[in-house]
Amino acid sequence: MAPTMELVLLFIIILVSTLSAGAIQTHPLDPLTPEEFNLVRTIISKSYPTSSCHANLTFQYVGLDEPDKQTILSWLSSKSKPKIQIPRRAFVVARFEKQSLEITVDLSTRTIASTKVYKGHGFPLLTFDEEAMATLLPSKYKPFIESVKKRGLDLSQVVCTTYTVGWFGQVKTNRIVNVQCFYTKETANLYARPLEGISILVDLDEMKIVGYSDRMVAPVPTGEDTEYRSSKLKPPFGPKLKGSAFWQPHGPGFEINGHTIRWANWEFHVGFDTRAGPIISLASVYDLEKQEYRKVLYRGFVSEMLVPYMDPTTDWYFKTYFDCGEFGFGQTASSLQPLTDCPSNAVFLDAFYQNSHGSPVQIPNAFCIFEKYAGDIMWRHTETGIPNKVITEVRPDVSLVVRTVSTLGNYDYIIDWEFKPSGGIKLGVGMSGMLAMKAGKYTHTDQIKEEIYGTLLADYTIGVNHDHFLTFYLDLDIDGEANSFVKSNLETVKVTVDDHGTPRKSYWKVVRETAKTEADARIKLGLKESELLVVNPNKETKVGNKVGYRLIPGSVSHALLAVDDYPQIRAAFTNYNVWVSPYNKSEMWASGPYTDRSTGDDNLEVWNKRDREIENKDIVLWYTVGFHHVPSQDDFPVMPTLSGGFELRPTNFFERNPVLKVLPPEHVDLPNCTFEL
Amino acid sequence: MAPTMELVLLFIIILVSTLSAGAIQTHPLDPLTPEEFNLVRTIISKSYPTSSCHANLTFQYVGLDEPDKQTILSWLSSKSKPKIQIPRRAFVVARFEKQSLEITVDLSTRTIASTKVYKGHGFPLLTFDEEAMATLLPSKYKPFIESVKKRGLDLSQVVCTTYTVGWFGQVKTNRIVNVQCFYTKETANLYARPLEGISILVDLDEMKIVGYSDRMVAPVPTGEDTEYRSSKLKPPFGPKLKGSAFWQPHGPGFEINGHTIRWANWEFHVGFDTRAGPIISLASVYDLEKQEYRKVLYRGFVSEMLVPYMDPTTDWYFKTYFDCGEFGFGQTASSLQPLTDCPSNAVFLDAFYQNSHGSPVQIPNAFCIFEKYAGDIMWRHTETGIPNKVITEVRPDVSLVVRTVSTLGNYDYIIDWEFKPSGGIKLGVGMSGMLAMKAGKYTHTDQIKEEIYGTLLADYTIGVNHDHFLTFYLDLDIDGEANSFVKSNLETVKVTVDDHGTPRKSYWKVVRETAKTEADARIKLGLKESELLVVNPNKETKVGNKVGYRLIPGSVSHALLAVDDYPQIRAAFTNYNVWVSPYNKSEMWASGPYTDRSTGDDNLEVWNKRDREIENKDIVLWYTVGFHHVPSQDDFPVMPTLSGGFELRPTNFFERNPVLKVLPPEHVDLPNCTFEL
Repeated sequence: MAPTMELVLLFIIILVSTLSAGAIQTHPLDPLTPEEFNLVRTIISKSYPTSSCHANLTFQYVGLDEPDKQTILSWLSSKSKPKIQIPRRAFVVARFEKQSLEITVDLSTRTIASTKVYKGHGFPLLTFDEEAMATLLPSKYKPFIESVKKRGLDLSQVVCTTYTVGWFGQVKTNRIVNVQCFYTKETANLYARPLEGISILVDLDEMKIVGYSDRMVAPVPTGEDTEYRSSKLKPPFGPKLKGSAFWQPHGPGFEINGHTIRWANWEFHVGFDTRAGPIISLASVYDLEKQEYRKVLYRGFVSEMLVPYMDPTTDWYFKTYFDCGEFGFGQTASSLQPLTDCPSNAVFLDAFYQNSHGSPVQIPNAFCIFEKYAGDIMWRHTETGIPNKVITEVRPDVSLVVRTVSTLGNYDYIIDWEFKPSGGIKLGVGMSGMLAMKAGKYTHTDQIKEEIYGTLLADYTIGVNHDHFLTFYLDLDIDGEANSFVKSNLETVKVTVDDHGTPRKSYWKVVRETAKTEADARIKLGLKESELLVVNPNKETKVGNKVGYRLIPGSVSHALLAVDDYPQIRAAFTNYNVWVSPYNKSEMWASGPYTDRSTGDDNLEVWNKRDREIENKDIVLWYTVGFHHVPSQDDFPVMPTLSGGFELRPTNFFERNPVLKVLPPEHVDLPNCTFEL
Repeated sequence: MAPTMELVLLFIIILVSTLSAGAIQTHPLDPLTPEEFNLVRTIISKSYPTSSCHANLTFQYVGLDEPDKQTILSWLSSKSKPKIQIPRRAFVVARFEKQSLEITVDLSTRTIASTKVYKGHGFPLLTFDEEAMATLLPSKYKPFIESVKKRGLDLSQVVCTTYTVGWFGQVKTNRIVNVQCFYTKETANLYARPLEGISILVDLDEMKIVGYSDRMVAPVPTGEDTEYRSSKLKPPFGPKLKGSAFWQPHGPGFEINGHTIRWANWEFHVGFDTRAGPIISLASVYDLEKQEYRKVLYRGFVSEMLVPYMDPTTDWYFKTYFDCGEFGFGQTASSLQPLTDCPSNAVFLDAFYQNSHGSPVQIPNAFCIFEKYAGDIMWRHTETGIPNKVITEVRPDVSLVVRTVSTLGNYDYIIDWEFKPSGGIKLGVGMSGMLAMKAGKYTHTDQIKEEIYGTLLADYTIGVNHDHFLTFYLDLDIDGEANSFVKSNLETVKVTVDDHGTPRKSYWKVVRETAKTEADARIKLGLKESELLVVNPNKETKVGNKVGYRLIPGSVSHALLAVDDYPQIRAAFTNYNVWVSPYNKSEMWASGPYTDRSTGDDNLEVWNKRDREIENKDIVLWYTVGFHHVPSQDDFPVMPTLSGGFELRPTNFFERNPVLKVLPPEHVDLPNCTFEL
């Protein structure tokens, strides 16, 4: 190690020590700090010196190596102040000499705690750097230069992007990506002008083109009307929306202490991970009656997002993205724009991920946190039934939103964790951004005599059919870890006049079924009328109901690929909308730990086949929000947000309505002001 | 007619003439004004003089007799200014000598245009007055007084309410209601302390008790912890929510002209009906590209709401309310409270219905209209794929909400019509209020050895299982009246390597099926992966897609009663989630025109059996939003709002994203102010 390197290291050590002695105590679930990223890089680089440079050692994933759940829970319940600092560790997946290394770094001792070579199928996350490098290769590749020339296009206006290639039965796989290119002349809408027919394969470990074909020349769409930057668009603009201002004279109702947020009756921790993006941990709700915080969610995050396209032809069949496992929902998080991505009362937090050299990259404003005053009603009642008296009691609703947006190439995914004073947690999923477009030879649907696998959106432009499946990991700990999953099936009961002396012929009753093993908890929604609950079988209300939360699904979709199709084997976690598994620290990622080119031999469906016991255990609920997307012209060239989601709602969790005794927020009149419009 | 009566009439005539010559021209769909209600009453009372008083003539329904659709459409497209006034008519259902009379009153000529005696099954809406009169009868009825005494209760604290009794196979029916009573000592929560076991039948036409039984004495719940008025509750209060102020320096973005509202790119008419409540008509959206308003929805409203309870025992089996047809979603509309029911930027409108004497009753603030700034994102994209350039374009969302709340006894239903600049119409249904509670002998679930048909909520208090099914009438006129209903079924296609030379084994494609007749459009959601569209087969985009809107359901529920059970025969319109019928002016009410004690011989399912042609016709979409409700303690004593709904979303309606060229609302900074906190 060169002397300068040692100096840098020393500086880092001092910095980290200073920080850890600072005012804000580190929470054991806090994401790695920039200093910690740097420390990890330094420690590992020292152990993997390469002949000339670090080109051969790349950091594919660096994240917090979370302490064991029991350690966290003990730490949380400890009364000592300040709490004892749990040693910080980082988990790293690096590529070195064409192998995936799993390295655990102990940040307190500044040593490598363990190293393992991963021998299984699949590869770790791609990094932005290697993707960027791969996209620059074609412009120096002669056959590609020829192809561009043949199309009469200007090479300097060609931009390429990388596509993961999936797995289609190959026995041996390499870290290959497909590079496809677009023409950006006349439009900044990258996806509008594909150079269809050209396929470029790049080996990321070698960082070179290993396959090339130019099969056909399709018309390149003109890109007309695909501009979306307001600065470049021409009038008329509209529709016109009026401006407004929002004012909280006493400041926001929440406080952020490090990564811990307290608001109204909620307390939770907001983490961040390169792969998962936002992670909500240790969410507890204050019970006014019991005068204590009660546990609800140990940890929740987007475990995987699958986007399979429905076009089986050469340049499209492999497009079946696993966006979390391949590209990372965290490292693709966008910087949120004040006043447009989030309202004026939002507070922002930054996030960090590592580049392929292991250095921290900042995402400014990766999170926004705001109180949502949507004009909703928390609860109300008007009573006119009592003579000579009218009672009206109304409480307006306010909720707290933690928002991130991950931009995976063309699409922007808005993830809202919304906490409600009534105890509900709503997950909002919004989809915007650009459609994936394919060039075709058509300018009118009348000309189409074959399957085009999508919708003709504009001249020579097809929006290809696809799905979005977001699988949420929800480690609910309802009033403690030992929980059960209950299906409350609503079943029709037929009765006759002999039963109750009434002419009623039927009603439905609740038949509760507690899932004993994993097999009992695989559910395709929509086939039965059921309520799905996670309850604590050891805790009950005064009158004896088991305390619980129930899942209220939004719009439901099912996977439609054949179960033996390769992408579906890899995505078998979407075969059901709901799964429940016993908590297992290593089972975080529905698509398995190594998703790129995975073969489906190590994912949620495989683990679930062990059919483990889940009754009165620490369990994890996996819920998949799905959308089938038949593109429409109204989504072109940029798509108005399409929303979905679900809600976790207290169900006999409280003795009674937990917001019965909420008071309406005080009304604030606008001050006397002198202002100019 | 007494001279004073003539004077009143003259005054009314002058008033009406004055109003009709006023600045705001009457829209042919405007609801009846108070003056028109009075005119109707005067005209009809003149024709039905009764010996001593008007006790024998009651006005069960008075509403606008809508002009024919073609008349409205011609009026709408006429260029004359001011437009020719279409003669106003009222439609009345009155009870006179135990018959239901259908009377049409011509308001311009001040004459009765037609009278018909209704001979079929079922009865019209109940009026508030007769319900109120019926609830006062028990306190003067000796056996009831005895029953109260037997229970050791104070008669002056007993309050009663009326329950419709449905139909259970009777050949002949009367206008009977069931009256049940509650104890209001210790609580204003009427529903918390039922006097279980007492059943009182009242004949509304006779206005006397015609049946009485006191079968058993159940413990009367104590009512403890059922108070919900903040003025009566004791600390601790919480959770604490911070106050805020909202400021639109340029005023609201919408304008209200009579009952017509214009906002952003939307224009629509807001009507009001005693039975339906809010009616949205003639909703059109401005197409920036075509520079014209385009038709979307001719008329939409809640046609019926069914709430069947799932308890087959004597005092509960008949509780299967048809809230619109029996009680009226309009006459039960609550006055909305500024700042709590609606945000500070809301504008309010009043509504009117008639009492049983035909006199207008005002509902102040029955509607609120406000721009919703919920912090949502209209569309966004971050582009990092172009080297050395980052593009971020975000447009915050604003929508316009028209809100009403109908309170049907214990429950409060929040109906939000939400218009989005992107062309979507969202229907939000929120449910709050009180659970229907039944007294029982239990204080702990361990004691329960029988079916209790609900959840034990508190000592001696059972929340009874039930459903809520809201059936929406949606006369979509997509770019004109002639529309078709299309099921875009997503079907799995299996492929082999021989098909496309790729290893992909499957994909889904869109198989479009246009419904020819009504039978093709009966749909139970959740069984197939489909998009459901209403398209105009005569209008297409430049590239040839049929312009349309699609239905995006929220959470879906199915009816669970046996199809041959009496309530389900009457509610057969809930056998499917979706129906499509040809437009027919007389088919407005899913449960038929006379719902109280209806026998199911004249409802949507019966009309639908004719299996009429619906392709390229003026069609109506009927969509049912359903909730199964297993009460939970968290809903007690007042229920935090449970929300659902659906969206109508443009689908190839526009050539491209209609809000591509929207500009973010200008940011308004808070003025420099001197204020006291």
